Amino acid sequence: MGMTITEKILADHAGESRVVPGQLINAKLDVVLGNDITAPVAIREFEALEIDQVFDRDKIMLVPDHFTPNKDIKSAEQVKVLREFARKYGITNYFEIGRMGVEHCLLPEMGLVLPGDAILGADSHTCTYGALGAFAAGVGSTDMAAAMATGEAWYKVPPTIKFIFQGTDFQPWVSGKDLILYVIGQIGVDGALYHAMEFTGAGIEALSMDSRLSMCNMAVEAGAKNGIIPPDQTTLAYVKDRAKREYKVYQSDTDAEYAKVITYRVNEIEPQVAFPHLPENTRNVSEAGDIGIDQVVIGSCTNGRIEDLRVAASLMEGKKVHENVRCIVIPGTQAIYMQAVKEGLVDIFVHANAAVSTPTCGPCLGGHMGILAKGERALATTNRNFVGRMGHPESEVYLSNPAVAAASAVLGRIAHPGEVKS
Amino acid sequence: MGMTITEKILADHAGESRVVPGQLINAKLDVVLGNDITAPVAIREFEALEIDQVFDRDKIMLVPDHFTPNKDIKSAEQVKVLREFARKYGITNYFEIGRMGVEHCLLPEMGLVLPGDAILGADSHTCTYGALGAFAAGVGSTDMAAAMATGEAWYKVPPTIKFIFQGTDFQPWVSGKDLILYVIGQIGVDGALYHAMEFTGAGIEALSMDSRLSMCNMAVEAGAKNGIIPPDQTTLAYVKDRAKREYKVYQSDTDAEYAKVITYRVNEIEPQVAFPHLPENTRNVSEAGDIGIDQVVIGSCTNGRIEDLRVAASLMEGKKVHENVRCIVIPGTQAIYMQAVKEGLVDIFVHANAAVSTPTCGPCLGGHMGILAKGERALATTNRNFVGRMGHPESEVYLSNPAVAAASAVLGRIAHPGEVKS
Repeated sequence: MGMTITEKILADHAGESRVVPGQLINAKLDVVLGNDITAPVAIREFEALEIDQVFDRDKIMLVPDHFTPNKDIKSAEQVKVLREFARKYGITNYFEIGRMGVEHCLLPEMGLVLPGDAILGADSHTCTYGALGAFAAGVGSTDMAAAMATGEAWYKVPPTIKFIFQGTDFQPWVSGKDLILYVIGQIGVDGALYHAMEFTGAGIEALSMDSRLSMCNMAVEAGAKNGIIPPDQTTLAYVKDRAKREYKVYQSDTDAEYAKVITYRVNEIEPQVAFPHLPENTRNVSEAGDIGIDQVVIGSCTNGRIEDLRVAASLMEGKKVHENVRCIVIPGTQAIYMQAVKEGLVDIFVHANAAVSTPTCGPCLGGHMGILAKGERALATTNRNFVGRMGHPESEVYLSNPAVAAASAVLGRIAHPGEVKS
Repeated sequence: MGMTITEKILADHAGESRVVPGQLINAKLDVVLGNDITAPVAIREFEALEIDQVFDRDKIMLVPDHFTPNKDIKSAEQVKVLREFARKYGITNYFEIGRMGVEHCLLPEMGLVLPGDAILGADSHTCTYGALGAFAAGVGSTDMAAAMATGEAWYKVPPTIKFIFQGTDFQPWVSGKDLILYVIGQIGVDGALYHAMEFTGAGIEALSMDSRLSMCNMAVEAGAKNGIIPPDQTTLAYVKDRAKREYKVYQSDTDAEYAKVITYRVNEIEPQVAFPHLPENTRNVSEAGDIGIDQVVIGSCTNGRIEDLRVAASLMEGKKVHENVRCIVIPGTQAIYMQAVKEGLVDIFVHANAAVSTPTCGPCLGGHMGILAKGERALATTNRNFVGRMGHPESEVYLSNPAVAAASAVLGRIAHPGEVKS
């Protein structure tokens, strides 16, 4: 019996020739990641261990991205903890304000996470990196503390659900975000609880890396331990000039065992909208009804990449954001921002009356940079629409891809991009 | 006996042929301004009056700029008060997030404040507009409420201090910001208490509008009721294509009576730095000593205009922000931001590792977008360096012009621009 890509990566990192779902293993880590919310807690726990060094100063990544540039004194103090820890232990990959981006946009872009890696991140959307064919899972701050000390972590090997996307005849404006929203709508927010979600098929092979990152990013919203896409030419082309260290490409064996295999045809999927207050409350955008909106957010670790900005700009070019709507565009990293400036996308956004922010997680988690008042409604390209996620407990968040978000910003209500541009 | 420009504007707006310092007058207002901090209070007081309309829906300006894009639920609720008031009363000049800028950058740029105007603003830096030859003074929210109802306000006519700047042989890197910091250093933060500060002389005539706006902006930091610069060709060229209504150019009479006349020679003034914790604690930058910094802020109603960004970029081009420094650049308005993109300034800032923010007052008043932790030190182009102004009560703020700020960002300590570029 063969192994899945997830099992193979975990086996190799545990020094085992074979692992099976449910098995407890101790895996060596290639990357240990924390941000300005989670790392300060981890750092305090690490300091309590009273050891004088981290396991590897090149493998720890600290990205202050959630409440930065510092929204208040508390967040300033949090970032200061990261900064001082980075200086004390010579952490190479501490990303200061101005040099950074949203962690899950930044690390792939910089080639710091690579195929075959075992990645531990004290952030739930660490699963994003599965798009590169890595095992990446979010953990709590305590696990991060232990991992910074030992470079290892205990895992229970997850069983894998295989999702096959047949066909490449996508409906217009459909991206990886729609595929994952569709899946979550089908299986529910606990539909993949502590499983690996392995995305395969011609539909996946046709996706860009940005779309794949967006898709794996939300695996956790179905309860998954990790999402993963077996590396192909698109993956290798992406990492080719970014990687500064060795990496290993794993593929699932043809006789790997899956807990379940679920097949979709991509042409059945239209742009999706997740209604409040769960990502599983998905509808086809054409069936959304007349939902007026107060705010649109285009950005986040889910959809703050250059392709996301390109598609949004293509819909907003020469148009204005609806007078009732605030539209906030947040490039995921400084490099993405620069590219957006270079391509004239920022010009399009500002002429359309959108605010363009410096990279930050910002409003996604109700941090800053566009928080909602009571009774307000936002459409966002982010990943969670829980009660109060973006502000007041009586506000609402709808989730979509950037095309739907941009079209809706222009029309002032949730809209199919085809209404703005054919 | 003649009148000063301030007296003439007030006399005309009070329907008097002549006013004298100390006289109480009731002046008709051309502009009534509020922001997301002050206007909600004013609006609540206005609503308590139970009248069904504002005095003039075109003359009230509402700019949510302080904590926007909304930093938290509270600020979101504040902006919502402005938005709903604007809709209810049909306020023409409500500037929604994405369409706005820092109020005192935005209004002159849009030609909404003009020479000869009497401008009441519920913001202390309303005095900025004196640069256009207007009478502009900051008041409290209660006065704003009354002004929205009546279009009038009571003033005690201020005596005027005349500042004459002789010569046009400025030292390198000296701007209007340095002149005003120098003045405040000389006369103190109460040196012009409830006076009009009238800035004249060849040195003033040689200043650009951006420099003049920067200068009048800080009149209040010397305790003045207003700052004012008599209109000249530079003023008229600035307002020519912006004004969409009539305006009147006033000049001080040659036999006007001044409380005091103070003369400086511009060539004696080098770039200034105001040390904590008062704007009057000024020193020549060459005498600042070795002051390491954690953060640089380039922006605000004092220095967030295109010339400010140009001079900062000229010093940062091809260089990197010092590794110990976060540099945050905040264009004053969307138009300034677009111009900075167009001229390649944003590219220079980001390549130098600065964060470029959407327009906001942000960190200037400790709002958001770069708040200081305990013990941190910032150099900022803003206007106030009071205890805790930019964050923690044990943080420090130093004030300077954008050239000094940019050079210091590169060198990691307070530095003369000549150290970076000759």
